[in-house]
Amino acid sequence: MSSAKSPPVSPLAPQSQPDLPPIRGVGLATAQAGIRYSGRTDVLYVALAEGTQAAGVFTRSKCPSAPVDWCREALGSAGARALVVNSGNANAFTGLRGREAVALTAEIAAEAAACRPQDIFIASTGVIGEPLDASKFRGVLADCAGRTEDGASAWAAAAQAIMTTDTFPKLATRRTAIDGTTVTLNGIAKGAGMIAPDMATMLSFVFTDAALPQDVLQALLAAGTATSFNCVTVDGDTSTSDTLMLFATGAAGNAAVSAADDPRLSDFRAALDELLVELAQLVAKDGEGARKFVTVRVTGATSDASAHRIAMSIANSPLVKTAIAGEDANWGRVVMAVGKAGEPADRDRLAIWFGDVRVAREGARDPDYSEAAASAVMRESDVTVRVDLGLGDGAARVWTCDLTKLYIEINGDYRS
Amino acid sequence: MSSAKSPPVSPLAPQSQPDLPPIRGVGLATAQAGIRYSGRTDVLYVALAEGTQAAGVFTRSKCPSAPVDWCREALGSAGARALVVNSGNANAFTGLRGREAVALTAEIAAEAAACRPQDIFIASTGVIGEPLDASKFRGVLADCAGRTEDGASAWAAAAQAIMTTDTFPKLATRRTAIDGTTVTLNGIAKGAGMIAPDMATMLSFVFTDAALPQDVLQALLAAGTATSFNCVTVDGDTSTSDTLMLFATGAAGNAAVSAADDPRLSDFRAALDELLVELAQLVAKDGEGARKFVTVRVTGATSDASAHRIAMSIANSPLVKTAIAGEDANWGRVVMAVGKAGEPADRDRLAIWFGDVRVAREGARDPDYSEAAASAVMRESDVTVRVDLGLGDGAARVWTCDLTKLYIEINGDYRS
Repeated sequence: MSSAKSPPVSPLAPQSQPDLPPIRGVGLATAQAGIRYSGRTDVLYVALAEGTQAAGVFTRSKCPSAPVDWCREALGSAGARALVVNSGNANAFTGLRGREAVALTAEIAAEAAACRPQDIFIASTGVIGEPLDASKFRGVLADCAGRTEDGASAWAAAAQAIMTTDTFPKLATRRTAIDGTTVTLNGIAKGAGMIAPDMATMLSFVFTDAALPQDVLQALLAAGTATSFNCVTVDGDTSTSDTLMLFATGAAGNAAVSAADDPRLSDFRAALDELLVELAQLVAKDGEGARKFVTVRVTGATSDASAHRIAMSIANSPLVKTAIAGEDANWGRVVMAVGKAGEPADRDRLAIWFGDVRVAREGARDPDYSEAAASAVMRESDVTVRVDLGLGDGAARVWTCDLTKLYIEINGDYRS
Repeated sequence: MSSAKSPPVSPLAPQSQPDLPPIRGVGLATAQAGIRYSGRTDVLYVALAEGTQAAGVFTRSKCPSAPVDWCREALGSAGARALVVNSGNANAFTGLRGREAVALTAEIAAEAAACRPQDIFIASTGVIGEPLDASKFRGVLADCAGRTEDGASAWAAAAQAIMTTDTFPKLATRRTAIDGTTVTLNGIAKGAGMIAPDMATMLSFVFTDAALPQDVLQALLAAGTATSFNCVTVDGDTSTSDTLMLFATGAAGNAAVSAADDPRLSDFRAALDELLVELAQLVAKDGEGARKFVTVRVTGATSDASAHRIAMSIANSPLVKTAIAGEDANWGRVVMAVGKAGEPADRDRLAIWFGDVRVAREGARDPDYSEAAASAVMRESDVTVRVDLGLGDGAARVWTCDLTKLYIEINGDYRS
């Protein structure tokens, strides 16, 4: 099967990539296992120091991939010693053979890392429904384990190896402190670039040298996800493989903390949340065919959850997204998307802004609305749509991109 | 404001339009009121004989248009004497002025029909957020009332007058009997062609000379909608104005029937259901940019409702719809859409067909799957996607169209 031609780098890509510092207890290596691609790396191996704790959040799909099933189970048995990520094949919807491929991958990696198979975490992204030949990892992972590095170039190579049809690698870093001890957070992600021609899968892995127990780590990750990756959408489609994991090696040797809401974790929480938001936004900025980065803010809803559902209804609406692609301040479509969300809304209290320009208020067009001012907002590459419902204090913010012909081209090409 | 250039007639349009017979008690007239368009009709006036009963189902939007509010209320006061439909302006999100415009339209129509304003039903489709100048109906509706007709050309003109960016008029007819008395059903619809550049609005009006009480009519229409218009989707977006109404003049003089499940209504129910399905399918066939008509069948779900939600998840998935546009038998995306529906599904029992070609079974690719056979199915202009969940007896069937670059072109053009 041939891949579709690569789309150009997203115009929303950052000007440059950050240099990621080493994280004590984390070693990285990439390789070419020849799973599907040729002439590029397709495996990332991450060695994790003894005592590393892992937390994860996964796709809500009722048909998850075999690696997702594996990771969910492995989280229950304490400890993480290695992460293996391959691109090119998602090992999803591959039946019994998929489970066997994951078990074999874990076995090969456990041998390389000299640990138990249940200390191995696995993620796969790429074509689905094709059997993954895990025997190709033989030799490759042991080789990786013998040559791990932790410099900026190793992090850059890691972000590259997990890409599928992403048009740019996604990396972010933060430095913070826990009770006076400096700790570092590094994260990489691959986004809603399709594996041409299969499906958008979001993978992200965050590493820190902080010492944190598993339950605290899990709570921090779950809370951070709610305001970051769960607030980003490209087309409303949910992959079978979405995986976000947080690994803490403990090498920083900070004071022991036993609860996620411990005040000594407030800076760490803020740094993690920021890093997750940065990565999530990078995913939206590399949305298939994206030409505009869109922030949807909803205020005045009856609850935060209601505001979130309304914001997602706007962000997922093809009619809103095509209007933004056409640089059209089409607030009628925003009204439509609010209405179809099924959440409490009173037409006659609704107000809508594009950027700072209020285009509608009290259920009708704003009499002071300037088409020229709204058009200027729509020509920007970052567009904010804001809706105030005038009912309560519920608020939410989500990110998406516009819907362009390039999306159709990327996703509508022949598979073979 | 200029309209975008008209897209070409849908390749899925029927070869010819049916000739609709007269319905006793129904008279039609169309006119140019100059609401928004020039050089074409934009008002349909339907005179209804005394004693006509009306039933209606409307958008679930929480921000419905002023005419939808009006019709919901008017249904509560027995009787219908005229229907007024205008295209070009949806009178949605127009605040207090929208309610005043509806009241004025009803007043002008009531004068023309010599009835109470609450006997008037009103529907509007077109641009939203623009005040509708209902005073333009003055003279026009009275003139219409004086020259109604009931021949095939009058029905064809009626279907034309309510079009917005539809690429073909939508008409259907059935003849059946109630307890030996022949009755006729005629229906017209306008579909998910956008009012360039605003929003997709579905309007449909069905007329019969059957004599049926309002509560029976409402029950029949609600039941018929569940398997027709509620099973069609173009892009998952819900208009503020969707309206489906059924008017029964009683002129056929059939035996009185007092319950929707009366066995004497079984033929009528079947005819109504068929007619509604035909109209709903015509709407999908005129979906914006549609090149393929898609039927999604789901069987083996835990309930019919669950099957319906899974079918809609598949039918609304941009990734499934772009794959079909690309003639790609991409069952991986179908798995994804099943998984994201959130309904009970067991990956390892799932089977998927394109047409008659089974491409996946028991959670993996069908070993007997022929890429050539599947590709042949995908090249047809009618494509059926079938999923069997292997869990129970729940089944559903919905219709949609593919997602093409033309959709983006139609909806992403500048508004002005």
